[in-house]
Amino acid sequence: MMSINLDPRLQADTVEIIELDLSTVRLMNDRRFPWLILVPRLSDLVELTDLSPGDRYRLMDNIALCSAALRNVYPDTHKINTGALGNIVRQLHVHVIARRTTDAAWPNPVWGVGTAEPYEDGVREAVVCDLRAAFKAGA
Amino acid sequence: MMSINLDPRLQADTVEIIELDLSTVRLMNDRRFPWLILVPRLSDLVELTDLSPGDRYRLMDNIALCSAALRNVYPDTHKINTGALGNIVRQLHVHVIARRTTDAAWPNPVWGVGTAEPYEDGVREAVVCDLRAAFKAGA
Repeated sequence: MMSINLDPRLQADTVEIIELDLSTVRLMNDRRFPWLILVPRLSDLVELTDLSPGDRYRLMDNIALCSAALRNVYPDTHKINTGALGNIVRQLHVHVIARRTTDAAWPNPVWGVGTAEPYEDGVREAVVCDLRAAFKAGA
Repeated sequence: MMSINLDPRLQADTVEIIELDLSTVRLMNDRRFPWLILVPRLSDLVELTDLSPGDRYRLMDNIALCSAALRNVYPDTHKINTGALGNIVRQLHVHVIARRTTDAAWPNPVWGVGTAEPYEDGVREAVVCDLRAAFKAGA
């Protein structure tokens, strides 16, 4: 498995969930939103188009696995939001977020809304375990 | 070619650029941002995962074509932003936006920022023609 130099900000804001074939999946440490970040484990990626076509297809498969895992753990998900922005953190990463009509930003995007609220200890571990189990069930 | 029932809001906010194999590409009528919208021409799509795996790969190819066309017409692009949100307009559509560090929202996302500023007549047609030519050169 390729190793990866994770951007320090991504490292600080997230915790690892699972390694998929192309990407590392991490959970944003913000209990307001079930929010996964995929980071392809290849060097010097900024844009989706820096990936080969085959790796772009693998990334799309990884996105679909994240969507399924989120819907499994959060059955009240109303919409999945997917985005690759990278205006602040340049390292290529893809957001996959489960949106509920009751969440703190609905119907707006989550980026830049308010301040992240870290999970409480114990709760975060439970979420991580539930998501890992969902990935393993769906892979 | 499949026809499509375009959501009335997407219809009102955008003008057609080109038909790709899976998606219709439209330009958001907002001169603040070079902003394309891809709409897959299949019925009853809400999530990316409503597409078959093969159609998801075709969508990824369509996204890459949009990125290349935007970079061709806007060489000062600093970052491409790509997103599938759909919290307001449910019909599956993907945003591909050329971001400049001088634009009205940088480094924040463009969604929900300020008010759209329609292109002036004549300018819009020039942008449409330039983008069509870039798609034809890159396809």
